[in-house]
Amino acid sequence: MVIELTVFDILDILGTMAFTISGALSAMNRRLDLFGIFIIAFVTSVGGGTVRDVLIGQTPVVWMQNTTTIYLISLVTLFAIVFRNKLDYLKKSVFLFDTIGLGIFTITGVETGIRAGLDPIVSVALGTITGCFGGVIRDILCNEIPVIFRKEIYATVTIVGGICFMFMYSIGLDMTLTYIATTLLIIVIRLLVVTYQITLPSFTVKNPNID
Amino acid sequence: MVIELTVFDILDILGTMAFTISGALSAMNRRLDLFGIFIIAFVTSVGGGTVRDVLIGQTPVVWMQNTTTIYLISLVTLFAIVFRNKLDYLKKSVFLFDTIGLGIFTITGVETGIRAGLDPIVSVALGTITGCFGGVIRDILCNEIPVIFRKEIYATVTIVGGICFMFMYSIGLDMTLTYIATTLLIIVIRLLVVTYQITLPSFTVKNPNID
Amino acid sequence: MVIELTVFDILDILGTMAFTISGALSAMNRRLDLFGIFIIAFVTSVGGGTVRDVLIGQTPVVWMQNTTTIYLISLVTLFAIVFRNKLDYLKKSVFLFDTIGLGIFTITGVETGIRAGLDPIVSVALGTITGCFGGVIRDILCNEIPVIFRKEIYATVTIVGGICFMFMYSIGLDMTLTYIATTLLIIVIRLLVVTYQITLPSFTVKNPNID
Repeated sequence: MVIELTVFDILDILGTMAFTISGALSAMNRRLDLFGIFIIAFVTSVGGGTVRDVLIGQTPVVWMQNTTTIYLISLVTLFAIVFRNKLDYLKKSVFLFDTIGLGIFTITGVETGIRAGLDPIVSVALGTITGCFGGVIRDILCNEIPVIFRKEIYATVTIVGGICFMFMYSIGLDMTLTYIATTLLIIVIRLLVVTYQITLPSFTVKNPNID
Repeated sequence: MVIELTVFDILDILGTMAFTISGALSAMNRRLDLFGIFIIAFVTSVGGGTVRDVLIGQTPVVWMQNTTTIYLISLVTLFAIVFRNKLDYLKKSVFLFDTIGLGIFTITGVETGIRAGLDPIVSVALGTITGCFGGVIRDILCNEIPVIFRKEIYATVTIVGGICFMFMYSIGLDMTLTYIATTLLIIVIRLLVVTYQITLPSFTVKNPNID
Repeated sequence: MVIELTVFDILDILGTMAFTISGALSAMNRRLDLFGIFIIAFVTSVGGGTVRDVLIGQTPVVWMQNTTTIYLISLVTLFAIVFRNKLDYLKKSVFLFDTIGLGIFTITGVETGIRAGLDPIVSVALGTITGCFGGVIRDILCNEIPVIFRKEIYATVTIVGGICFMFMYSIGLDMTLTYIATTLLIIVIRLLVVTYQITLPSFTVKNPNID
């Protein structure tokens, strides 16, 4: 049996691994037990795609139809636990992988929306959900305000990338080019944003006791 | 092209706007960034209907099939940001709109349950979910115990309204009358409850270290 | 009309009652109002099965198709409120019922996965979700890090039970025997774990400021 992996499959695997490591590290920071670490890693990795599949009614959700994902996440979680103190040195790599995952998963989500016949703007929203909601669920389970709402223009980058994808798709450019270009765009913007500490404005209310 | 709006459509739009404003104000109170404000506003507005659609398997969920909602929420969120300090004066209007939204969305939810052939008591539960869960998700994302569990009989009002709707529906009254009467009922009860600060009883346990 | 209850139905009812009581007590500990108590009790009871049904696309979800569950939960919640101070004496019974519920719901979930034609490892995951996620949602709504991530090997027990079920199922043993044996296995392991205070290891990171 020969398994043929496309560039996209390889990127997808890298993205899954990166999100798994980021989830496992978050869980260890909060002193969760072995199972807690595994489930937070799992949820960070598959959460975005799961919410996407449920919202458009594509069930059973994707990770239930391909056990490779479960085995991959289990192995990477064990790896993260064993090398937890070494991973500090890998901090920048984790951030890089996380950003790669964000780029790939966003574009996968947008494309899923197009294939399901949804409106372009809805497809862009699906991309954002696929890219970001794994992290949102991770933060909710860890009892924090989701980090994407607070810094680093995390989600905004996915909207920009999604809109570019829709544009390139609508004028009929080569799909492989479109995939790679928009994924790279998301990655580059996010790297720039974090390097130069660009933030979106937040707005304060004078008398903040409204609700 | 002539767009014909029924009274119900207009109320629905008002409800969506009100929930959007209430979500945006909540997010600004918590100093979230621009995207955070938008997503909290969005979730408060469509969250209840989304949970309802997912539970009964009516997917893709409603806001994915009609982009008007997305544009409307975007515009209203911008409005809420620009006029955030003026909105203090609008506080009572926001509360009023929020209550209108609660009334309309509850009844929409009950009716969705009936159309899906569900049992009356399940339809009432669907109405409560549609009316309240946008706010529940908003509070979870903002890392708070959902307000509906703590004060103002928020959800109980929707159960009363839903039961009245089922009763009027089952004895065959005119649907338009039923819609308007039960929506108004929810609105009036909620206004009375808040004006006279009526609360449901809460119960304390003597030795509260059970779990 | 004669209602025939199998042993499994009876266990299922006991499990639902136990989870309802555990949810109601949690809510009263947090001084939620009457509706808050009811909804937390309801969610603890049906949450796991609801997430399972949504993930595999079996909608409307189960509790919407059988109103008995709603009436049962309402009655048991009222019982829990009236006897809230007496329930302290029942603490051990609650723990026992909760464990029975965990055992039954896990096995129900695994079997649902098999019937839906899912892979064994995915079916085991479905069992864990069915058994545990009611409690997870309860803790999220009450604004806490879900207890299953922190102590008592809660979820790990369900994985062990699920794997045993898959093994006994695959070698073709009698289904009734398989049901009862694996349910009892989960119950016994959990009782041992709590009696002897066995915990899973947790892992700390040296410089815990990674994310």
